[in-house]
Amino acid sequence: MELYEKTVSTTDIYRGAIIYVHSDEVELADGQHSRREVVEHSGGVTVIPVDTDGSVCCVRQFRYPYGETVLETPAGKLEAGEEPLDCAVRELSEETGLTADEWVYLGRFYPSPGYCREILHAYMARGLHSGAAHPDEGELLAVEKYPLDTLVDMAMSGELIDAKSIIAVLKAKRYIEQEEHN
Amino acid sequence: MELYEKTVSTTDIYRGAIIYVHSDEVELADGQHSRREVVEHSGGVTVIPVDTDGSVCCVRQFRYPYGETVLETPAGKLEAGEEPLDCAVRELSEETGLTADEWVYLGRFYPSPGYCREILHAYMARGLHSGAAHPDEGELLAVEKYPLDTLVDMAMSGELIDAKSIIAVLKAKRYIEQEEHN
Repeated sequence: MELYEKTVSTTDIYRGAIIYVHSDEVELADGQHSRREVVEHSGGVTVIPVDTDGSVCCVRQFRYPYGETVLETPAGKLEAGEEPLDCAVRELSEETGLTADEWVYLGRFYPSPGYCREILHAYMARGLHSGAAHPDEGELLAVEKYPLDTLVDMAMSGELIDAKSIIAVLKAKRYIEQEEHN
Repeated sequence: MELYEKTVSTTDIYRGAIIYVHSDEVELADGQHSRREVVEHSGGVTVIPVDTDGSVCCVRQFRYPYGETVLETPAGKLEAGEEPLDCAVRELSEETGLTADEWVYLGRFYPSPGYCREILHAYMARGLHSGAAHPDEGELLAVEKYPLDTLVDMAMSGELIDAKSIIAVLKAKRYIEQEEHN
């Protein structure tokens, strides 16, 4: 049986500042009808900046949905028409002041494909130069520096809890291991 | 400055079948006010079942928000009051027919903490026994088997695109590598 769901109708629920929510009637491959709730979002990037000594600048931010601060690799939303790499360069500079000579694409991914339509892109930045951070207005964050190997341990132990950051850390570590092996 | 955002007021937007959306007025740590859009979800689990020969049963499903089929490790939503491990045992059996003697907790994570309040838990299942799959009504999926090392390559190349599956694959691989090293 072909795996396909056809849109029968769309009902707009909410057009907010960062999300657009709709509820669609769909026809499944077996002919039955069902509903799908969808949250659309412009998507974004995350950057793991790995310095020559193996240290990584992370940011800690209050994440309102969870009511707690969360340690993350620098990240941000795509602006309208913005290329992911341009967004990565901009967000790294805004949040940490860093610029980079080398950008390695670590791939794109879907954070929660059951109901979200959001695409995230991950990059590793190397050949780093420091500068002044200049966060967006209302964007309050603290920069914290950790060795990459410590972040790998924190990802494995569950201490690093943000999905995009876990992916960036584990992919960067494996990328560097493969590079050293070749 | 303390990183904290205080709820001033909550406006309900939508109470759907799987999501609850609200828009909150918040007071930031610097005294300014802002709005936060929040999507709440019951959360879920994913399971990576690793057989003695290193092969892993995955599932391919049509993911309506993206309009495409996505390869994922077996996964599902938590039912009301359900413990994550019970959910993992149930979903693995429903989607693949597999039961397992050993369950390794690979940690919890936040898929998109900027606006979602969803917690996902990852497990590795070993000591596998096959049985009959029995997916939920309307849940159409195809089981596909890959070597774990192939899934690691697919995660690194971007072919594996689902965040929870990338995390489960890279954590399981590193867990097994550390086990072999000790």
